[in-house]
Amino acid sequence: MNTFGQIFRVSIFGESHGKWVGVTIDGCPAGIDMPVEDFLPDMDRRKAGAAGTTPRKEDDLPIFVSGVYNNKTTGAPLTIVFENNNVRSGDYDAVKDTHRPGHADFVLTRKFNGFNDHRGGGHSSGRLTVALVAAGVVAKKILSGVSVHATLTEAGGQTDIEAAIQKAIENNDSIGGIVSCAVNGLPVGLGEPFFNSAESVISHIVFSIPAIKGIEFGSGFAAAGLTGSQHNDAFTDENGTTATNHAGGINGGITNGNELNFRVAVKPTSSTPREQQTWNNATNTVAPFTVKGRHDLCIALRVPVVVEAATAIALADLLLLQRVANSI
Amino acid sequence: MNTFGQIFRVSIFGESHGKWVGVTIDGCPAGIDMPVEDFLPDMDRRKAGAAGTTPRKEDDLPIFVSGVYNNKTTGAPLTIVFENNNVRSGDYDAVKDTHRPGHADFVLTRKFNGFNDHRGGGHSSGRLTVALVAAGVVAKKILSGVSVHATLTEAGGQTDIEAAIQKAIENNDSIGGIVSCAVNGLPVGLGEPFFNSAESVISHIVFSIPAIKGIEFGSGFAAAGLTGSQHNDAFTDENGTTATNHAGGINGGITNGNELNFRVAVKPTSSTPREQQTWNNATNTVAPFTVKGRHDLCIALRVPVVVEAATAIALADLLLLQRVANSI
Amino acid sequence: MNTFGQIFRVSIFGESHGKWVGVTIDGCPAGIDMPVEDFLPDMDRRKAGAAGTTPRKEDDLPIFVSGVYNNKTTGAPLTIVFENNNVRSGDYDAVKDTHRPGHADFVLTRKFNGFNDHRGGGHSSGRLTVALVAAGVVAKKILSGVSVHATLTEAGGQTDIEAAIQKAIENNDSIGGIVSCAVNGLPVGLGEPFFNSAESVISHIVFSIPAIKGIEFGSGFAAAGLTGSQHNDAFTDENGTTATNHAGGINGGITNGNELNFRVAVKPTSSTPREQQTWNNATNTVAPFTVKGRHDLCIALRVPVVVEAATAIALADLLLLQRVANSI
Amino acid sequence: MNTFGQIFRVSIFGESHGKWVGVTIDGCPAGIDMPVEDFLPDMDRRKAGAAGTTPRKEDDLPIFVSGVYNNKTTGAPLTIVFENNNVRSGDYDAVKDTHRPGHADFVLTRKFNGFNDHRGGGHSSGRLTVALVAAGVVAKKILSGVSVHATLTEAGGQTDIEAAIQKAIENNDSIGGIVSCAVNGLPVGLGEPFFNSAESVISHIVFSIPAIKGIEFGSGFAAAGLTGSQHNDAFTDENGTTATNHAGGINGGITNGNELNFRVAVKPTSSTPREQQTWNNATNTVAPFTVKGRHDLCIALRVPVVVEAATAIALADLLLLQRVANSI
Repeated sequence: MNTFGQIFRVSIFGESHGKWVGVTIDGCPAGIDMPVEDFLPDMDRRKAGAAGTTPRKEDDLPIFVSGVYNNKTTGAPLTIVFENNNVRSGDYDAVKDTHRPGHADFVLTRKFNGFNDHRGGGHSSGRLTVALVAAGVVAKKILSGVSVHATLTEAGGQTDIEAAIQKAIENNDSIGGIVSCAVNGLPVGLGEPFFNSAESVISHIVFSIPAIKGIEFGSGFAAAGLTGSQHNDAFTDENGTTATNHAGGINGGITNGNELNFRVAVKPTSSTPREQQTWNNATNTVAPFTVKGRHDLCIALRVPVVVEAATAIALADLLLLQRVANSI
Repeated sequence: MNTFGQIFRVSIFGESHGKWVGVTIDGCPAGIDMPVEDFLPDMDRRKAGAAGTTPRKEDDLPIFVSGVYNNKTTGAPLTIVFENNNVRSGDYDAVKDTHRPGHADFVLTRKFNGFNDHRGGGHSSGRLTVALVAAGVVAKKILSGVSVHATLTEAGGQTDIEAAIQKAIENNDSIGGIVSCAVNGLPVGLGEPFFNSAESVISHIVFSIPAIKGIEFGSGFAAAGLTGSQHNDAFTDENGTTATNHAGGINGGITNGNELNFRVAVKPTSSTPREQQTWNNATNTVAPFTVKGRHDLCIALRVPVVVEAATAIALADLLLLQRVANSI
Repeated sequence: MNTFGQIFRVSIFGESHGKWVGVTIDGCPAGIDMPVEDFLPDMDRRKAGAAGTTPRKEDDLPIFVSGVYNNKTTGAPLTIVFENNNVRSGDYDAVKDTHRPGHADFVLTRKFNGFNDHRGGGHSSGRLTVALVAAGVVAKKILSGVSVHATLTEAGGQTDIEAAIQKAIENNDSIGGIVSCAVNGLPVGLGEPFFNSAESVISHIVFSIPAIKGIEFGSGFAAAGLTGSQHNDAFTDENGTTATNHAGGINGGITNGNELNFRVAVKPTSSTPREQQTWNNATNTVAPFTVKGRHDLCIALRVPVVVEAATAIALADLLLLQRVANSI
Repeated sequence: MNTFGQIFRVSIFGESHGKWVGVTIDGCPAGIDMPVEDFLPDMDRRKAGAAGTTPRKEDDLPIFVSGVYNNKTTGAPLTIVFENNNVRSGDYDAVKDTHRPGHADFVLTRKFNGFNDHRGGGHSSGRLTVALVAAGVVAKKILSGVSVHATLTEAGGQTDIEAAIQKAIENNDSIGGIVSCAVNGLPVGLGEPFFNSAESVISHIVFSIPAIKGIEFGSGFAAAGLTGSQHNDAFTDENGTTATNHAGGINGGITNGNELNFRVAVKPTSSTPREQQTWNNATNTVAPFTVKGRHDLCIALRVPVVVEAATAIALADLLLLQRVANSI
């Protein structure tokens, strides 16, 4: 199931080293402005270029295939593709003998009986997140009056992120990080207790982003060590304003109108430049292995805009669904 | 959307103080043994009774409405209901003026324009998890050769759980906990990169369980502080065995044949016996409030079997889906 | 997949000779009046009793299991069950050796490897349409201002239906019929070109009604013999009023605001009282067979209210979906 | 909802006068041969060129965007696009004032508040069926051992189709027709009683094909005039072979192993060359109107391969689903 959403349905397609990667949004309302310029800021935020990011550069200009006419959505399926210009598939020939540790090479080969496109991770590549970010730009337009903002708040175990990157470069080893996301301006009432709680829907799409290993809403894991009287958010007025926000803006799976916030754990990039010892299918032994290809030392640097996009997609769908629920 | 799953589709219905709560499983294969006795152990694990759990007691005997004939599944929709015998709705009349802190009263009232059944949390009640546990029993039968095991590993911030409960009773305040879940015996290949990663599907259903605020797979949030060479799980043979299991049994969203494991954070029961200060709609002021009704001091005690059920449901669906993918 | 609909999702469960048959509606808006009395007229129309209908009588009083509080929908899943009081399962023991011609006995046995509940057709029985009619009552409440009206316009090949029934009784053989359905008051814009045309969605659910073998919209099969200039419906004003209605109220899969109409073909009841020659698994020969059980001589008499219900369900879902599409 | 199918999910995108039209198949098993040559025969059958078909010619060569590697499917989403080379959008400027009778111009404008791409029917154009035919080629590969064959059996009300076309040319008016489809080699057991009967699923997708106004399975509308003893198909052996096939290969919504057959009614092409009288929004009167653009005099000539494709898509999905049902 390569589609997410009930009303605002996002499907992505493409491979790391194919001609295009793309996204189709089915169920996008008609009449939304869709100039190319509106996509560029988020595309740029996702791009490589900073210290610690891959030297693979792509233009990442959205090409509208369908669903846009006179610069506005038409109500028909909206398909956007991105060219893969900067492909060096030869880098991946050497790894055929070795399933890269931390990567999906092994599981993909088994799952698809060896028919998967192994180059650059194929359909599982982080390259596909360009399509997710594009869908996020559209979703944000539906969430008018709502801000979705994600930032990298920790890298390599510390909050000084520049220092963390510098240390990773010196150490010649990849690092992970923590991305925090806050959403403001949401109406009360998005999400459902079973099985589409706001946490369910957001975590579902966020765990599609490569390298995410954990998510916590509001007080999250810290909640497990608190008491009820410490953790409960007391109401201070009839509109649902609360004195604290341990709930992270969600009660019983439903948004409560306060800031919705969560944090996600990003594992260190699997493609570390360090030599690793792992199984080699050619020699039938554990042997030294150094990953080829061009990679991010700290993929977490590029994750915030993807988390924003995923969150916006999930919330846009819940928002459209809620309008139906209120429509009688 | 009150349904979970693509092939093994689980829908639940009912309210805390209605006549029955129930579950329909659509897509359950025919010919599975379905004796009532097979449900009792998990039903018992979910029940109240231990120190720190609610005095509300229910028989929780499954009543098969459809889909079972001669004690075996027929392939038709399998509906199971449970009676709500032990209902004291009067407890909830007093709270009409006060939205209970930490509960869904406020959001439900707004979401459904006041038409929701407020008694005992209505459809959002933890009572509904009895239906989830029943579906989990069926799911476990589909996962033959696979063990799903969840336990409470922390309560009130400590690993000595009995001591934590004792302290909560003395303290007259509710507490949270951490539930750890391990799945062994899974085949390689369940899950998909976009958007149905194993983490996506498991987290989606786990976040439908009331009181869950966080989930982490494998190394989880600790991964954010590790380096790639520390975190990667080196392969030690051609079958995907790894020296470590930081990945928690999942690479690129797909099960890798090693133990799948994750931890969830359970917040302290919102219905703490402590007096709370919160908004009172009758007096239009913040006023003291003490929750009525019968509640768990540490709901986390009863969560493990529900987490097991949710996990089994998610994995049964992925397993059936994967058989299709392999069928050509 | 025992569920129909994207927003207004109807699932049915139960067997002909089980304790209850039932329906769950997920996605029903909150606040809709739901008195039992509102169900009785359509329940009565579906009931047996007239000449040519089965002597099996059921009370068919809806029992609300969930989703209704203070006689109004709550927004939670709405489950309604009906008791099967009037069951004579013994009638079906004799047919174990013979797959009844025209019935699903043979295919169900094969599909479910013999585990299906064969009594009275099990889950495939026309008894299940009681649940469909109940969901139709709810759907009609959502379609306020819209009338859905189906009638039997032909039976046994003639328009004098009483005469046709009389002849069938004399002839001791079952007959079929034609049901015509007209919907007035629909807004322009329901349905989508691919793949959810109004015809697609209506035919999908209508072909779930047992015994339906054909459906035609507007001019239907007669259209194949007309020319474009004869068939096109000329517009007579700017609001889409047309001089004729060969389109049956649908252009390009989308409702056009004119009367939506269609006709369905109902085959003669498979359980004819006439002796039939068919394969006997006990004797391994073609042998005489007379069906037992209580059956309708002209099931088409009871079909109109079921067609109405199915149509209302399909249109209620399209109507709620269209509100989303217009919501930006 | 622009997607069809539960397991083998087909989504189409594009407009008549856009750059590409395309299709994404999600859930296509890995390892299926996918040479371009295998697409050409069905593409050719769909093409214009014969007497009575449009002069618009397209190469219709499939371009694989994703999901194919080394000429085989990879298990990732399979996206195929087709270029729109032969576009004359200017033809459509004139019709802005007049909603073409029989077409979707009026309903699309209302449904999408005027934001739809009106050129050539936009997303509602028959041009989109090129994507459906491509998906049909893939579906047929999944249905190994099964033949799906559709032909035009009537045009303009007669069975001599060449004569009918000749008469239409002389008459300068478009005509309709009847397409008959037969499927042989299907296993017993595809489809489900509620709500996914084989008839439901096939009719759903067939009614997405532009110009279809009716469908009947087996004896269809003629069944309404037969008696039960005439209509029932007697079994002649233990394998479900029947003496007659009035059921059209389906009992109770489930395939019975005999030939599945149905007929569809195709209305005359709405774009007749004859002058029509219809409402003109510029003059605010009913006025003469002659359609521009290049059109088929008998679109039914090109429909059989599209009906085959639609049928194959529906049956491939049911076949994959049934493998799951049998997998315990």
